[in-house]
Amino acid sequence: VYDVIVIGAGPGGYVAAIRAAQLGMRVCIVDDWEMDGKPAPGGTCTNVGCIPSKALLSTGFLFEQIENEAIRHGIKVGKPEIDVEKMMDRKKGVVRQTNDGILYLFRKNKIDYINGRGSFVSSDDSGYVINASTSNSDNIRIKAPNVILALGSKPRALPGVPFDEKYILSNTGALALKEVPKNLWIIGAGVIGLERGCVWNWLGADVRKLEALPSLLGMADESISKEALKIFTKQGLSLTFGVKIEKVTVEDNRVSVVYQDSDGKAQEIWVEKLIVSIGRVPNTSTVDGATVGLKLDDRGFIEVDADCRTNLPGVWAIGDCVRGPMLAHKAEEEGVAVAERIIGRRAFVDYDEIPAVIYTEPEVAWVGLTEQQIRSTGRKYKVGQIPFMANGRARAADETLGFVKVLADADSDEILGVHIIGAGAGELIAQAVQAIAFKATAEDVGMMCQAHPSFSEAVKEAALAANKEAINF
Amino acid sequence: VYDVIVIGAGPGGYVAAIRAAQLGMRVCIVDDWEMDGKPAPGGTCTNVGCIPSKALLSTGFLFEQIENEAIRHGIKVGKPEIDVEKMMDRKKGVVRQTNDGILYLFRKNKIDYINGRGSFVSSDDSGYVINASTSNSDNIRIKAPNVILALGSKPRALPGVPFDEKYILSNTGALALKEVPKNLWIIGAGVIGLERGCVWNWLGADVRKLEALPSLLGMADESISKEALKIFTKQGLSLTFGVKIEKVTVEDNRVSVVYQDSDGKAQEIWVEKLIVSIGRVPNTSTVDGATVGLKLDDRGFIEVDADCRTNLPGVWAIGDCVRGPMLAHKAEEEGVAVAERIIGRRAFVDYDEIPAVIYTEPEVAWVGLTEQQIRSTGRKYKVGQIPFMANGRARAADETLGFVKVLADADSDEILGVHIIGAGAGELIAQAVQAIAFKATAEDVGMMCQAHPSFSEAVKEAALAANKEAINF
Repeated sequence: VYDVIVIGAGPGGYVAAIRAAQLGMRVCIVDDWEMDGKPAPGGTCTNVGCIPSKALLSTGFLFEQIENEAIRHGIKVGKPEIDVEKMMDRKKGVVRQTNDGILYLFRKNKIDYINGRGSFVSSDDSGYVINASTSNSDNIRIKAPNVILALGSKPRALPGVPFDEKYILSNTGALALKEVPKNLWIIGAGVIGLERGCVWNWLGADVRKLEALPSLLGMADESISKEALKIFTKQGLSLTFGVKIEKVTVEDNRVSVVYQDSDGKAQEIWVEKLIVSIGRVPNTSTVDGATVGLKLDDRGFIEVDADCRTNLPGVWAIGDCVRGPMLAHKAEEEGVAVAERIIGRRAFVDYDEIPAVIYTEPEVAWVGLTEQQIRSTGRKYKVGQIPFMANGRARAADETLGFVKVLADADSDEILGVHIIGAGAGELIAQAVQAIAFKATAEDVGMMCQAHPSFSEAVKEAALAANKEAINF
Repeated sequence: VYDVIVIGAGPGGYVAAIRAAQLGMRVCIVDDWEMDGKPAPGGTCTNVGCIPSKALLSTGFLFEQIENEAIRHGIKVGKPEIDVEKMMDRKKGVVRQTNDGILYLFRKNKIDYINGRGSFVSSDDSGYVINASTSNSDNIRIKAPNVILALGSKPRALPGVPFDEKYILSNTGALALKEVPKNLWIIGAGVIGLERGCVWNWLGADVRKLEALPSLLGMADESISKEALKIFTKQGLSLTFGVKIEKVTVEDNRVSVVYQDSDGKAQEIWVEKLIVSIGRVPNTSTVDGATVGLKLDDRGFIEVDADCRTNLPGVWAIGDCVRGPMLAHKAEEEGVAVAERIIGRRAFVDYDEIPAVIYTEPEVAWVGLTEQQIRSTGRKYKVGQIPFMANGRARAADETLGFVKVLADADSDEILGVHIIGAGAGELIAQAVQAIAFKATAEDVGMMCQAHPSFSEAVKEAALAANKEAINF
């Protein structure tokens, strides 16, 4: 008998399990992910998301540096060639290392791990019975008064066009191509499509993106979206907006996409590979929630309150399968908080300080409100914006694209949002997260002593700029 | 007539001038640095310090990546060759861009800039008369009630061994080598020697360092010094400690160094180039301070109080020519504060939150107290340490060397010091600076939601580890 059963070992689930064990609970975690026949905890993030994506981005960026930047540094070197198999082997190694690291953490924290699919069987006054069906068809019954559902999400397919992962690719297939395609189209210009597009573009594919929405990165700050469009177009990504996909078919080892362009004109294109990246849907269909009366909302998410409580006593849900951004670190924070709540501690997840990062080059990252969000509320605000061109380290490193933008309340000077496009944005955002968590003012951040030369100085200068006190711009 | 005259346009001086102008003062800045016959404001930092150093480090690191890392990514590429002249041209371009940027800022802020050497002539009740002697022997007399001395520093030579910048190099010569030397010895294992050593080591020189002290980076946290020694030795830097230099001579285009090793045995070596990097001395000899009674201390620094006031009313001194760490960003903070104090504002420089960064690869950065400093005071403390091997982004990027170490007060949980060796440490330290400025606890920093995957998560985990709550380690 366990104190808590966690279903799903993605970033939300495995972190919840570890925190619960640290707090003295007996924990069992059930997860059915396998890679090459071996247990592969870590969920989408580790297996077909963040981790392999960043591994390929490292390779792609180095390739691009060799091909285009080395010469400007005075480095003479021949044309690079990519060995896709070896690149993928390195990626697999990174993923395996992460899987194994999580398995080690389970042992270290005395967490029982079952490699199988978890689903509800029944419930009574003493808790919930969960069945874990393993890949060799064993069925293991376990029981606990507390269940944490960390079921994750899966890629949304175009209606009537299932992923075959050979021609029509989800993230999974896009991360496992065996060679650089001549041409690659991506439907959907969100984060995942953009990251995948970058890699294959650097490696020589002709990458085009079709997007139903009228602009790139609609959820980002408007200045960031504009700058991103400029930069990524210049890098060779071809972006087409306002399209309506009519029909996708595979014929003769090629994909035909019939669509209406933004002028309403019918178009057809033929491509080698098509990535469909139009969002993700919660993974709530395999857990048999109906057996115990678990309530879903009309989009298939598990209904939870602000503290991740479902409608069933003792059953919690976190991460991609509940409301809020589908981000690993959001799931992690919920996982820790739920473990604490189970033993009766107060725990707080500040949904206003969850950063978003896009791992392109340059990177894009933000936290807090966008300018259009603030404007729509009528609140008065100040803007401080500093281009990386005015930053010494950026110039020394030849990484001068982009800017930092700080938004602060016009009266209180409190920082409301920080938006960055530029090299290392995904790390610079950490200071901004902290500033927002501490309700820091722009003046506070402008007074911090930051190392010279560093990209971080651009954050400081942008904060100073909000009060018209920037020094280097 | 001016409100304030600034002597020296390094990071302290030019920032002080800009801030003073922003606050409404009429400002003149006098600086004698020239590059290729053109005015070159920016001081040591811009001309022969941080900026060119980072430019060469970028090149060196990319070279190293191509030579040793590309293959592991599946990138097939020939052996790279370095065109030192082109590398130096790029570096010069970065420096020129920065000089010009500062000149632009002077114009933008309506600051008069004189390219000449400033020195005191006389003083009376209405202020100080400064003579600016320009390179074409003009002498310009200016006067102001307030003078900010931002005189900077210069490399210390070995007694009796002046820099010839051909064989016996200071930082200046080390940044302007015309080819990769076969072998290169560095006396002194401080920051500058280490950064220069890295570049030439990557580019193929046999680099050895001789250090009088018993260990590497004595001012750093003891765990950091130990790890740095391990990492840099493995990279091929050869480090020898506890030596006593006896004699340095140049003969037949080579340098002979006679020294006693740590066992007291006499040694002699012959090398192509020798970098002497044994510290810096304040640049206080050319300003004719004695004319007006300016007080220096016995090491040649200008004597100032905590607020950078000298013994003369209206005369302030900042940066390398006064007490405290010789760091550009320390000078900048003092420059801003002094400008504010001149118009009667209260201004505060928190000397406890000044970060130190070493731009090697991996980088080293810290802020606050070291473990040995805390231990020596008898204060009870906690340690949280997380290796980058336990960080997902580090693994994906193949940058797993090093760790983050957080020191916190055992009772209050206040963060006392953060010490990082690892990729991007110089940027990660920004969050730590802010945490220390806000007197954050380890718990606070552990609760921040950091983007996954990011190196910043290692800072969060190290803070959690201080309270034995790390998740991924």
